Amino acid sequence: MIYLFDEINTELTVVDKELLKQVDSPDLMITETSRQLIKAGGKRLRPAFSLLSGKFHDFDIEKILPLAVALELIHMATLIHDDVVDAALTRRGKSTVKAQWGNRISTHVGDYLFGKSLILLSSYQDSIIPNVLSNTSVKMCEGEIYQISASYDSQQTIKDYFYRVNRKTALLIAASCQLGAAACGASPDIYMALRRYGHNVGMAFQITDDILDMTAEQECMGKPIGGDLRQGIITLPVILALKNSTHQKRLYQLINKYNKSENEIQEAINIIKKCKGLEMSSNIAYHYIEKAKQQLDYLPDISTKKTLMTIAEFITYRNF
Amino acid sequence: MIYLFDEINTELTVVDKELLKQVDSPDLMITETSRQLIKAGGKRLRPAFSLLSGKFHDFDIEKILPLAVALELIHMATLIHDDVVDAALTRRGKSTVKAQWGNRISTHVGDYLFGKSLILLSSYQDSIIPNVLSNTSVKMCEGEIYQISASYDSQQTIKDYFYRVNRKTALLIAASCQLGAAACGASPDIYMALRRYGHNVGMAFQITDDILDMTAEQECMGKPIGGDLRQGIITLPVILALKNSTHQKRLYQLINKYNKSENEIQEAINIIKKCKGLEMSSNIAYHYIEKAKQQLDYLPDISTKKTLMTIAEFITYRNF
Repeated sequence: MIYLFDEINTELTVVDKELLKQVDSPDLMITETSRQLIKAGGKRLRPAFSLLSGKFHDFDIEKILPLAVALELIHMATLIHDDVVDAALTRRGKSTVKAQWGNRISTHVGDYLFGKSLILLSSYQDSIIPNVLSNTSVKMCEGEIYQISASYDSQQTIKDYFYRVNRKTALLIAASCQLGAAACGASPDIYMALRRYGHNVGMAFQITDDILDMTAEQECMGKPIGGDLRQGIITLPVILALKNSTHQKRLYQLINKYNKSENEIQEAINIIKKCKGLEMSSNIAYHYIEKAKQQLDYLPDISTKKTLMTIAEFITYRNF
Repeated sequence: MIYLFDEINTELTVVDKELLKQVDSPDLMITETSRQLIKAGGKRLRPAFSLLSGKFHDFDIEKILPLAVALELIHMATLIHDDVVDAALTRRGKSTVKAQWGNRISTHVGDYLFGKSLILLSSYQDSIIPNVLSNTSVKMCEGEIYQISASYDSQQTIKDYFYRVNRKTALLIAASCQLGAAACGASPDIYMALRRYGHNVGMAFQITDDILDMTAEQECMGKPIGGDLRQGIITLPVILALKNSTHQKRLYQLINKYNKSENEIQEAINIIKKCKGLEMSSNIAYHYIEKAKQQLDYLPDISTKKTLMTIAEFITYRNF
């Protein structure tokens, strides 16, 4: 995806440098764990969206930088908090990143990164940035908690799934697009179009992620296939398959089961694939991409518009 | 301590009502866990300090309310995140509150409460409130992480201990005092005196807590004695005893030991008591109280000044 960010590569380097500077703490453990997280990479999707959106009105890196860095810190905090597990899972999941630092360190380092983002955000005079991001972070938590209480619940609907995906992924990407433009002084008609673009791209992004979790491409990336099924997270392909498969009853059994064997996970994926659960999910992701692209009509004709168009199209084709 | 809050009892009731309103989420699990936390009580010390401080300049409950509620939400978030444990501790500590919800719920509910506090804080135009509280929350995390990395480290100095206690407790109380006055429009000479008062009271408060952890009074409250020793947290009485006791070597052995028996915890406490580790700690707490009271000289002569004086004196005499 990186070549898509060509026009903001210089700025992304500045973001990375600033990220490292932000986590330079007197406490060595904080600095080390955070640096490791930063260097492990990630696509810097949220800073990138904020920078690209800033191009639609008097682009000024100085104005976006605190926001861009804060967005990545919030994202990192979310990732590290998602790694906090319960005892049962710790025992099973020794090989994952979760086991690297303890739960207590993960919790407090996550809080630390989130706190750092707040210091950056408090430099903005305009209240839209803290307003949007505080509301976003509350809703993201609601999504995470809902995901926990909805795990292994095979009764959930597509609507429940969209609620979760919006909170888990789309809201922060929507905020990144909206606030990058707002930070540069864009008017509401511009930044709200960008927000809607971000929302739709974010929904497509997470649906694609959930599809990739069941495909071989995922395995090529070194991640085990069927991670969501293993954790009891019910995603769109599962919900669609439970509605449409001729092996509905067996799929229910498999989904509801704790501690599935590798064979059972493979069997569930096969059922989902057979009834075209993945294709149907792809179509829904594609529908969101179309909606994202439509929002671009409301934006001035600058070259960045083409970039946003290409990024939207790329989302559903990616295999990472 | 409650009678000390007589002059703000009405406002504290409003704070409690607003707290319950804030955690009213569409997600039942969030609402229930948060309500349980709120109803479990706590002294509402931070809201109370902010309200009392507001009395020193054009007191207006409307102006302080979002801050007062946010302070308690931040405190609650800290408490719930402190309850996140690693697998080893989960197994040992089944009987504590930690086991009630899982780690994952604790982490996300803590984030949720913290996020809710940010929404409240983003209503303030003046940047001092978000500025001070974002910096405070970062430093509080540093303190928590330092406490984890310093556990079972019997080499730590009094200075290390003060660093931790400031971050763990004093900073948020200092901020409560400072910002209550600032929210009502007080000038820096007023709110900085209140901040220094809060800092010193906060230090004394935590030192007293650490003393109580080793005394019978603590046991009367239904908490097991020696909780800090059990968790490897080295507090002031221990540091002083390691310097002064004639049973230094034995105390080192006991402190450094993981999974201490009840007899070993009692033996350590006896050594600490014998060399007057608790009295010396009390004297240091008392010294902070004196410093807190001195700060009151900088404040206008209103009846609340007397209340703050009494609260400061009460801190070291309390047995809960």
